[in-house]
Amino acid sequence: MYDSIIIGAGPAGISSAIYLKRRGINFLIISENIGGELNFISDIKNYPGFKEIKGVELSKKFYEHLKDYEIEPVLENVLKIEKNDKSFFVITKNNKYETKTIIIASGAKPKKLNIPGEEEFLHKGISYCYVCDLPLFKNKIVAIIGGGNSGTSAALAASDICKKVYLITNKDFLDCEKILSDELEKKKNVEIIKNANVKSFYGDKFLKGIIYLDKEGSEKRLEVDGVFIHIGLVPSSDFVPDEWGIKNERKEIIIDKYCKTKIDGVFAAGDITDLPYNQIGIAVGQGIISALSVIDYLNKLK
Amino acid sequence: MYDSIIIGAGPAGISSAIYLKRRGINFLIISENIGGELNFISDIKNYPGFKEIKGVELSKKFYEHLKDYEIEPVLENVLKIEKNDKSFFVITKNNKYETKTIIIASGAKPKKLNIPGEEEFLHKGISYCYVCDLPLFKNKIVAIIGGGNSGTSAALAASDICKKVYLITNKDFLDCEKILSDELEKKKNVEIIKNANVKSFYGDKFLKGIIYLDKEGSEKRLEVDGVFIHIGLVPSSDFVPDEWGIKNERKEIIIDKYCKTKIDGVFAAGDITDLPYNQIGIAVGQGIISALSVIDYLNKLK
Repeated sequence: MYDSIIIGAGPAGISSAIYLKRRGINFLIISENIGGELNFISDIKNYPGFKEIKGVELSKKFYEHLKDYEIEPVLENVLKIEKNDKSFFVITKNNKYETKTIIIASGAKPKKLNIPGEEEFLHKGISYCYVCDLPLFKNKIVAIIGGGNSGTSAALAASDICKKVYLITNKDFLDCEKILSDELEKKKNVEIIKNANVKSFYGDKFLKGIIYLDKEGSEKRLEVDGVFIHIGLVPSSDFVPDEWGIKNERKEIIIDKYCKTKIDGVFAAGDITDLPYNQIGIAVGQGIISALSVIDYLNKLK
Repeated sequence: MYDSIIIGAGPAGISSAIYLKRRGINFLIISENIGGELNFISDIKNYPGFKEIKGVELSKKFYEHLKDYEIEPVLENVLKIEKNDKSFFVITKNNKYETKTIIIASGAKPKKLNIPGEEEFLHKGISYCYVCDLPLFKNKIVAIIGGGNSGTSAALAASDICKKVYLITNKDFLDCEKILSDELEKKKNVEIIKNANVKSFYGDKFLKGIIYLDKEGSEKRLEVDGVFIHIGLVPSSDFVPDEWGIKNERKEIIIDKYCKTKIDGVFAAGDITDLPYNQIGIAVGQGIISALSVIDYLNKLK
């Protein structure tokens, strides 16, 4: 039986792992991938210590830090966690691991619009990751859906390589950091469409455009070569039983300031938590708090 | 009137400042110094992203990050904060600043033993900072008081350059990370004295030794050339009025998971808070949370 299992190897899980290892805890870190959503961020200017770094680069640094402690994540997809009398089971396709504590750090994934055409044109003009796919649209016309930090960053990046960029939001303002909207104002090839309610995508083999309702409710068509959907994240918490009662209505894990959930032995950190701010530095901090809370908890079990 | 004033420019305050600036908030960051206690840590191996870095180096990186955003801390000592009807005053020797919100990130300072000789032999053999003063004791005999992470790290560093090192703790075990105690076991010139209750220091112009009570209560004398006291930190919260009721019995600021205190408009982050884990990564995370909580609060005022 493990003392602890960390689920997820993004900034939160990696930070937990470093701290558990330093304290000589017998643990496992299980994740589908290494770095999580961090890999899909372009330029990071707000992780203290690095003035500017690409997401993949920071992810690499985190991973190297982990390897320096001789920690290697088990690359498996967690399907279910179960509660036993005095322990927990973490269940993957091929394995069942027993542990005294769990740190849920499984992060979040891009939210979908769930509208007609979205599935059909995925990878045929529609993407959830401008960092990955923007180069495919050099000198083309693209639309970014989402006026938050992620959408605005996508529009900024697109403006440098695309002919024309539409930034579409359903709000009447850009819900992003001022530094980003200020920068966006300088861009001549970006057109912001506010109060737009995107209804569907059309095309044939490949995406050809967007249908949306404008402020007055009139249907509009916008011809584009590509669409990037950046409307936020959905927590990856399907493997956490609803009956545990530790998820809120947004499927986030509810924590206290010690990163404890209301189930003894279960902790959470990073984008999966109900803290509304998904930031790398916060995930790191919560990852460390979770690890130290786990250690306190294990010491009390003795 | 400022929208926010950050008190302290260690990892927490700097992280808050970067985030406030990115959102175009009108704020001030006031601090006695830049970097805080971070400057006095030797080798940091647990701030994710940097496998190994000296405290002063990381402090420099944080400061450079701050300057990159054209933020310059006001170097003043905050004497008092006052609550007005709809605002706060932050009072220094020469100035009185008005603000809508405050982020308390003033950190903590080394704890004293408060025993005879401690004041008398300060800088005459006694130090609270092995990172700063250890080189003065090359090939000498030193004692480190404190068996936590900081004391153990001090003993490890001392063992490399001193003839003999005593590590003194009042507990019957070392209360540090396993990685540190494992490393310490390999050192031949380190002697650990457990269950020791240090009573006083003696000497003439310069420190000559320590008097302590052993497990049985017998008085023991230990001749040393130098003493490093690393028994924890005391929160720098004297400027926060007791009657606000936001300090606990250890003078730490009580926060919730959003880094809010129970006084509207007052937030706290880093070593000053009642979270028992003083870690750089946690201070950074809380600094960011505070800033984002301040922004949410200001938006609601509108």
